[in-house]
Amino acid sequence: MSQKTDIAKTCELLTKSGSLAILTHKNPDGDTLGTAYALWHTLGRLGIRSKVISAREFPKRYSVIKEYYDLNADEDFTPDAVVSVDCAGISLLPQEAEPYRDNVLLAIDHHGTHKDFAEYLLLDAGRESCAGVLSGIIDELGVEWDDYTAKCLYTGLSTDTGCFRYTNTTAESLELAARLYRYNIDAARLNYLYFEEKSLSHLELEREALSEMELYLGGTIALMVLTKDMLARAGAKLNDIEGITPIPRQIEGVKVGITLRELDSGNWKGSLRTMGEPDAAEICRKLGGGGHPGAAGFECSGTLSDIKKLILAETAAAINS
Amino acid sequence: MSQKTDIAKTCELLTKSGSLAILTHKNPDGDTLGTAYALWHTLGRLGIRSKVISAREFPKRYSVIKEYYDLNADEDFTPDAVVSVDCAGISLLPQEAEPYRDNVLLAIDHHGTHKDFAEYLLLDAGRESCAGVLSGIIDELGVEWDDYTAKCLYTGLSTDTGCFRYTNTTAESLELAARLYRYNIDAARLNYLYFEEKSLSHLELEREALSEMELYLGGTIALMVLTKDMLARAGAKLNDIEGITPIPRQIEGVKVGITLRELDSGNWKGSLRTMGEPDAAEICRKLGGGGHPGAAGFECSGTLSDIKKLILAETAAAINS
Repeated sequence: MSQKTDIAKTCELLTKSGSLAILTHKNPDGDTLGTAYALWHTLGRLGIRSKVISAREFPKRYSVIKEYYDLNADEDFTPDAVVSVDCAGISLLPQEAEPYRDNVLLAIDHHGTHKDFAEYLLLDAGRESCAGVLSGIIDELGVEWDDYTAKCLYTGLSTDTGCFRYTNTTAESLELAARLYRYNIDAARLNYLYFEEKSLSHLELEREALSEMELYLGGTIALMVLTKDMLARAGAKLNDIEGITPIPRQIEGVKVGITLRELDSGNWKGSLRTMGEPDAAEICRKLGGGGHPGAAGFECSGTLSDIKKLILAETAAAINS
Repeated sequence: MSQKTDIAKTCELLTKSGSLAILTHKNPDGDTLGTAYALWHTLGRLGIRSKVISAREFPKRYSVIKEYYDLNADEDFTPDAVVSVDCAGISLLPQEAEPYRDNVLLAIDHHGTHKDFAEYLLLDAGRESCAGVLSGIIDELGVEWDDYTAKCLYTGLSTDTGCFRYTNTTAESLELAARLYRYNIDAARLNYLYFEEKSLSHLELEREALSEMELYLGGTIALMVLTKDMLARAGAKLNDIEGITPIPRQIEGVKVGITLRELDSGNWKGSLRTMGEPDAAEICRKLGGGGHPGAAGFECSGTLSDIKKLILAETAAAINS
């Protein structure tokens, strides 16, 4: 069991160590990267050495964060302590975090479904993004924000709220955004990169996926399957898939949008999207997964037809309850 | 020439009349409707009779504004004065405003391209939306906001900024949004209606259009054709088409996105989208059209192959110049 902690204690833990490894979650998104690099940058300004440990390949879309990336490439690094950001469970750490996973001192997170793995846990499940949680920590540390801090925090805040569209957006999210806009973050460019630009592979995958969309339960469930063949034909990358998963739920009348993606032979990753009601995390928990009420996921193995039956039955039960 | 006015004088003009007609622009969008109904509601709370004059058919998507719509249906109404909101020129008034168009006392607007037609003009061209301009007027009038005011203002603010994605978004826009979120506006539902919900027809049209996308000039031009057959097969409406035209420009590396839509046999409507550079309006002007640097259009007749050659040549010339 992690010891629940508050912002004051979190600041103490972050500053008492001489050097820190900062772990992101695997398949890193804008929030885990934005939070990790904003923390790394903030610690640096306090004279504390740290290094972000994440997937080897840096997602091209977040190049604005990568600006200072090379400075982070400290080859000869043995940290005094380890902190994770935006990581809801030990199984979500990337392979690259292997040497550190059993010694995480502090987890900073905003997932209501967080499963304890660190000694201390700062969890703010009401916060839209981990970047939002970190913004309070940086203020408490007394470190002034600069343009790079603001770009990192905006990346986390905007991507986790779908540019302030998702149900997790609050007045506090928008106040933070207003504050970030007062820095030189070139929001027009960031919004283009995060919410507009699509690769040809993405569009090809979208086209294929749309032609295979299935509707169930009077049009309240939409299900889309992405097979390995489809992904290969489109030359799709992980980023492309992320942009596809919201589509089924966007259809008029649909309450639950489901995407099933083939991993290895027999292994599938499911992604659920709802308007928060029914609770996507509740449904996914039945299949060993988790997440947020509006966006959750699970992994399982079996035949596609069996997995379809399973997730459709759980989803129908949730809608009808 | 209109007399430029300020917020204080605007409030005086709005309150000195016993009754007011409030004109929206034609093909009413979220900003003109949100501003008109927020003003109507505010005047009502001050005991001033008013009526919104707009297109007969109320766009279904803005049903939240229509909540009080019936109260506005005052058949026997002869206003003392006329005010327009979000209307950049007299030619943009709807047919329904015909009896009032020559007697507009006050225009409230935020378009930098505003062409004078009212006696007085309150213009804030730096403001993202007309709803943003009105928010300052309501404060100056000393009328407290309520949930309906907030829903109307949020509709204008969010739709004119593409939910805070477009380049016109400012720190002030986000501060206004944060303030609106403190009312019971059910932003999750509004964001879904305005920015997420797509009809099955829309998705079907998207799928068809994607399969016909063509790239030119080293991938800097993307061209999409929507034939009458495709539109009919998908059962597509005008709303569906509007959602499709931004797609070609969203492709990585594309500088100009072109959509050619078949009207009647031999007649075509072209829509161009750029990031402002090259100037889409400049290109369209060569084919007798016009618009904004980032979004412009033209209409012409001929065979599809001839029209393609024509627009591709003009676009290539603009990119290469």
